Amino acid sequence: MTKEELQGATEEEQQAQSKKALKKQQKEAEKAAKKAEKQAKMASEQQSAEEDDFAKDRYGVSAMVQSQQKLGKQCFLVLRQQQFNVQALVAVGDRASKQMVKFAANITKESIVDVEATVRKVEQKIESCSQQDVELHVERIFVISQAEPRLPLQLEDAVRPDGEGEEEGRATVNQDTRLDNRVIDLRTTTSQAVFRLQSGVCQLFRDTLTKKGFVEIQTPKIISAASEGGANVFTVSYFKTSAFLAQSPQLYKQMCICADFDKVFCVGPVFRAEDSNTHRHLTEFVGLDIEMAFNYHYHEVIDSITDTMVQIFKGLRDNFQTEIQTVNKQFPSEPFKFLEPTLRLEYTEAVAMLREAGVEMGDEDDLSTPNEKLLGRLVKEKYDTDFYVLDKYPLAVRPFYTMPDPSNPKYSNSYDMFMRGEEILSGAQRVHDAQLLTERAIHHQIDLEKIKAYIDSFRYGAPPHGGGGIGLERVCMLYLGLHNVRQTSMFPRDPKRLTP
Amino acid sequence: MTKEELQGATEEEQQAQSKKALKKQQKEAEKAAKKAEKQAKMASEQQSAEEDDFAKDRYGVSAMVQSQQKLGKQCFLVLRQQQFNVQALVAVGDRASKQMVKFAANITKESIVDVEATVRKVEQKIESCSQQDVELHVERIFVISQAEPRLPLQLEDAVRPDGEGEEEGRATVNQDTRLDNRVIDLRTTTSQAVFRLQSGVCQLFRDTLTKKGFVEIQTPKIISAASEGGANVFTVSYFKTSAFLAQSPQLYKQMCICADFDKVFCVGPVFRAEDSNTHRHLTEFVGLDIEMAFNYHYHEVIDSITDTMVQIFKGLRDNFQTEIQTVNKQFPSEPFKFLEPTLRLEYTEAVAMLREAGVEMGDEDDLSTPNEKLLGRLVKEKYDTDFYVLDKYPLAVRPFYTMPDPSNPKYSNSYDMFMRGEEILSGAQRVHDAQLLTERAIHHQIDLEKIKAYIDSFRYGAPPHGGGGIGLERVCMLYLGLHNVRQTSMFPRDPKRLTP
Repeated sequence: MTKEELQGATEEEQQAQSKKALKKQQKEAEKAAKKAEKQAKMASEQQSAEEDDFAKDRYGVSAMVQSQQKLGKQCFLVLRQQQFNVQALVAVGDRASKQMVKFAANITKESIVDVEATVRKVEQKIESCSQQDVELHVERIFVISQAEPRLPLQLEDAVRPDGEGEEEGRATVNQDTRLDNRVIDLRTTTSQAVFRLQSGVCQLFRDTLTKKGFVEIQTPKIISAASEGGANVFTVSYFKTSAFLAQSPQLYKQMCICADFDKVFCVGPVFRAEDSNTHRHLTEFVGLDIEMAFNYHYHEVIDSITDTMVQIFKGLRDNFQTEIQTVNKQFPSEPFKFLEPTLRLEYTEAVAMLREAGVEMGDEDDLSTPNEKLLGRLVKEKYDTDFYVLDKYPLAVRPFYTMPDPSNPKYSNSYDMFMRGEEILSGAQRVHDAQLLTERAIHHQIDLEKIKAYIDSFRYGAPPHGGGGIGLERVCMLYLGLHNVRQTSMFPRDPKRLTP
Repeated sequence: MTKEELQGATEEEQQAQSKKALKKQQKEAEKAAKKAEKQAKMASEQQSAEEDDFAKDRYGVSAMVQSQQKLGKQCFLVLRQQQFNVQALVAVGDRASKQMVKFAANITKESIVDVEATVRKVEQKIESCSQQDVELHVERIFVISQAEPRLPLQLEDAVRPDGEGEEEGRATVNQDTRLDNRVIDLRTTTSQAVFRLQSGVCQLFRDTLTKKGFVEIQTPKIISAASEGGANVFTVSYFKTSAFLAQSPQLYKQMCICADFDKVFCVGPVFRAEDSNTHRHLTEFVGLDIEMAFNYHYHEVIDSITDTMVQIFKGLRDNFQTEIQTVNKQFPSEPFKFLEPTLRLEYTEAVAMLREAGVEMGDEDDLSTPNEKLLGRLVKEKYDTDFYVLDKYPLAVRPFYTMPDPSNPKYSNSYDMFMRGEEILSGAQRVHDAQLLTERAIHHQIDLEKIKAYIDSFRYGAPPHGGGGIGLERVCMLYLGLHNVRQTSMFPRDPKRLTP
């Protein structure tokens, strides 16, 4: 079976064909065909063979060839366009010659073709294609861009579920091979679905917040000082001095709140020079960030964020079922569950649940990654949700700018949010009072000189406010039940990978 | 006159008050007032003065005070919330005492207050406020966050049009003072309007493209090789090696097209280590990037981009009049004009127009900045548009990956787009054939080893494609008729500025 891209299809009987993606280019196809025709004529090595071929204006340009499935008088192709593919038949008849069948059979995999064809219903479902009820009877076929005959990986291997075909000795593709050849790997139905869904997450995030009155801001990535103390920060040489890459837009989001924007969000890269080689760490990822003033209680902020997440989950569930199902074919997972309103647990409750399950930990200890996952399972069992908020973290494990809990100084007005037991957001009410902020910084032994500009931001009127930062790649990974954040980053960056 | 933020207002007669921004917080105001009441009680230095004051639960917390307009039994305040402000009156009566009037008069400028008040119609328009027909009669007032008494700049100076008030010796604020104190400067009605409009540009850009079937992508900013030759690129230390900051997402956009995404866009930071200290250069700015496969002619790409720009212009005109008018008060400019369909001129036509206007230049010379501006004026005179496309640039002045014009090898399938005579987009059909791309790179004396990954992207099937990158800050600056790109960058970065 051959895989190729479909650039256009045209015919009269489109009744059974539901894919608008195939439809929209039909008008262009004829024009494109004429253009390709010219190219075909120029391909002098074919010229002689074509001399006595009545169908010579029906195909063109192919130099490098590779043997494929040939059935003498006909050949089958699979034409792909993004997430969808369809079987195509080139058969000797009044629209195709023997030479044309041979030409079609020899088109290299992954070449891009313009095709003019009639859509026909088929009796037996074509299990291997997304369009199972129809096939294309090809009347013209032109190669627009010819792929080199030896592909660095095979798409059918790249979409094979783990374990399937092992007995027949069929290959799967390891992650480094995928990432080294990302242009090919992104062509799989799975990748197409993952990144279309990711595009959807961004859109749902922004649309929900825009409706809530949030303003989108653009924050600088090159900064003069590492606001959070200086660890894990990348250094940039900046003309005659040096600078840093922002680990988060937090200072700038807060400045916008102090500058009277009331509610802001931003979507952009954040950088962490952390030498962590795990399934969930990247050195560059996309942050979906929120910051807002509130009137009365920081739970107003939690409610805004959890409602935004719920709108994203609903939007994905309602508008991205094709993508979810496509990914599930290769990577099966349970549908993502969430509650309305979102479950909010306090840290002390979580510690109690973990202790009951046999974990030994102190009241103010931070959660380890295994304990977070265990807690996720316990919460799922008890409350039947894959999404929840853990509120009131111990003050000691949070950054200096976290607002202490007014009723218990060992705790803080801070929270994490979890999907399938993994953290996707960290947030808090921030200290908006310059004096308290100074005290907290001194307590954390932070050099006040380095954070002077930050503290000064709160001297000229600053409303109480809070927010949080969401990792886009993690949200996509966990929503889809995937197991590595590199699957949801188009061109991932980690301590060992800088290319492509 | 005092400027302060308004956190809440409540009353029965809201008939004349159109600002939803004022309305939405009225419910919270009472709660907040109660909270502030507690705070007020704790402010021990006030305790004694309050003892025999019937209105002592109607105001609170103020330590540092500053003399203001005082009329004995009443005082006027101006309360601001984002782009809008309103006059407020505290007058001795059954809801306010003398002490309360004194307290209100002494609240420092830019402090954040919670206010409960009755909205009253006024006989004479209040020219100095955005809400000219009403004022607030204050019944409760609480300071939520007190500003330090000495502000680094005065907001009324920061919104004063150039030249106005010069005779009275009134100050304007220079750009560095603004940028050094951006949190205050962003509070002006002008800044609020500029950045709300900028948020709108991003939204209109994405919504238009999403409707056209484009997919949003996220591209890495840390890259291993400087794809465009290595000039003007920032270096990052990356663990034990070094890397670069992406000068554009172009390679990644193109890889996505090769990976079958058909039409993609992205919005994100781009970095230029260019030591240009001009009104229109930044070292970090926001790129609105487009890349798409086309079927027949790269003018399909131009049409998609110009239509997107037209949708942005229309959206701004129809939905952001308040913001446009607000900016115009401080920086008057002519309304932005555009044609449908967008005017497209060829480079040779532009050269002819310039020569006719007395400019001496060769056929294949690039346009200097003054000549671009002159051309903008000539085009405006002749065609009455502030937006147009200049097509078919000389091949010699474009990057190596630009597709040559098939009918004239001295020219290319490339274009720039201009707003008010300044370039906002540069784009082209890209060479999608690995062999031609290699030839062009050799012609430009580019080290093939360094761009191997780029060239290899086109070896496994690549559709003809093109695109372009738009500078967000320039679009906002030129649409609004402003004169410095730092006015439309929240936290601008240039060779001399890295803070705040």
